[in-house]
Amino acid sequence: MQKIHAIIFDLYGTLYDVHSVAHACEDAYPGHGAAIARLWRQTQMDYTWLRSLMERYADFETVTEDALRFTCAKLGLALLPGTARQLSDQYLHLNPHPDMPPALRRLRDAGVPMLIASNGSRRTISQVVSNSGMKWAFDQFVSVDDVEVFKPHRKIYLLAEQRAGHPRENILYVSANGWDASAASLFGFPVCWVNRDGGPLEELGAAPTVVVPDLAAMADWMLALR
Amino acid sequence: MQKIHAIIFDLYGTLYDVHSVAHACEDAYPGHGAAIARLWRQTQMDYTWLRSLMERYADFETVTEDALRFTCAKLGLALLPGTARQLSDQYLHLNPHPDMPPALRRLRDAGVPMLIASNGSRRTISQVVSNSGMKWAFDQFVSVDDVEVFKPHRKIYLLAEQRAGHPRENILYVSANGWDASAASLFGFPVCWVNRDGGPLEELGAAPTVVVPDLAAMADWMLALR
Repeated sequence: MQKIHAIIFDLYGTLYDVHSVAHACEDAYPGHGAAIARLWRQTQMDYTWLRSLMERYADFETVTEDALRFTCAKLGLALLPGTARQLSDQYLHLNPHPDMPPALRRLRDAGVPMLIASNGSRRTISQVVSNSGMKWAFDQFVSVDDVEVFKPHRKIYLLAEQRAGHPRENILYVSANGWDASAASLFGFPVCWVNRDGGPLEELGAAPTVVVPDLAAMADWMLALR
Repeated sequence: MQKIHAIIFDLYGTLYDVHSVAHACEDAYPGHGAAIARLWRQTQMDYTWLRSLMERYADFETVTEDALRFTCAKLGLALLPGTARQLSDQYLHLNPHPDMPPALRRLRDAGVPMLIASNGSRRTISQVVSNSGMKWAFDQFVSVDDVEVFKPHRKIYLLAEQRAGHPRENILYVSANGWDASAASLFGFPVCWVNRDGGPLEELGAAPTVVVPDLAAMADWMLALR
């Protein structure tokens, strides 16, 4: 493998825990929190893919609220406008995975430039990072807002490569989403798949460079390379 | 609404019952049939969207087997090559929904040209229709094999319009898949959404022309127009 000059991180599920949304769902709909959070997340991802294929981009906040409305209707739960806003705002206040801050501190101290490339809008990415006090870790945020198509379309990987300012083979791409890891590998990045739940590889015709259980192991692997 | 000169049908879920696969899954993995069939179908659709966005087309048979391998691995079930082939073959022997043959007979007798536009490969569509004895109903099959991108990309709707030989506003598009109905509406077809399970409309910024519970009601509506 070539020398790594920068790291690009996915945000949702990789740096931040999207399951933390389930608690707010449970508060709003006792007994239904887990079911809402699961269908909401699946629908949210489906809508990003469907809208991308339909060439009808809408930003992540819009897609997230649309997915919540569908989810509640599907589960037969009434959704008041105030509740929709309050639950969607949870996606602006995600908790970092506990392994994230210390791992990024070690990489920052080692002088590795770090970027985020996310399906979130510019505003969403900035708020999630600010609200968790992690702005110190990142050099740049790359949002799909600038290409108006969601991952795994190659445009976002290409834009992130350009912003990082190094050839793709010198950039490590880190994601906990198997499909994102596959697409980034096909694009040509060396890829670290953070396989948090120990699940199988997606069957999409591409394998990551390395598989780790969490970001601490990612930082160990990365720093051992240097 | 303009006069309708032809009908284009989606295949999976609309004309043929994809849930019939669950029985074969249950025979192969007692106690797990429903869980396998559900995750398999979701993964199969996800892979069609992901591969389309990644511009890595593989035909429906390939995607279907890939999705089955992922599903069994995810559920911790061993998958022998013979079982993979046998279960995937179920997608070539789907049962028509019971309302399908009589509704299509009425439309055929009324002289309405009928096409199928499907995510299936040319071979798959042809075999599913032949195996169910329904070849008499259709004038043409339109497969994503000819555009190498899956629904809801507009290329397949455009190809189906061209093959039908009428302007899109004179072609009724019939689908039980809400996202497919939305995409066809955005493309410009009048759309009949066959809402078989009484679920909510997908929140994708488009509404169908008419919503019916089954194909019998679709035929009633269509024949009343003429």
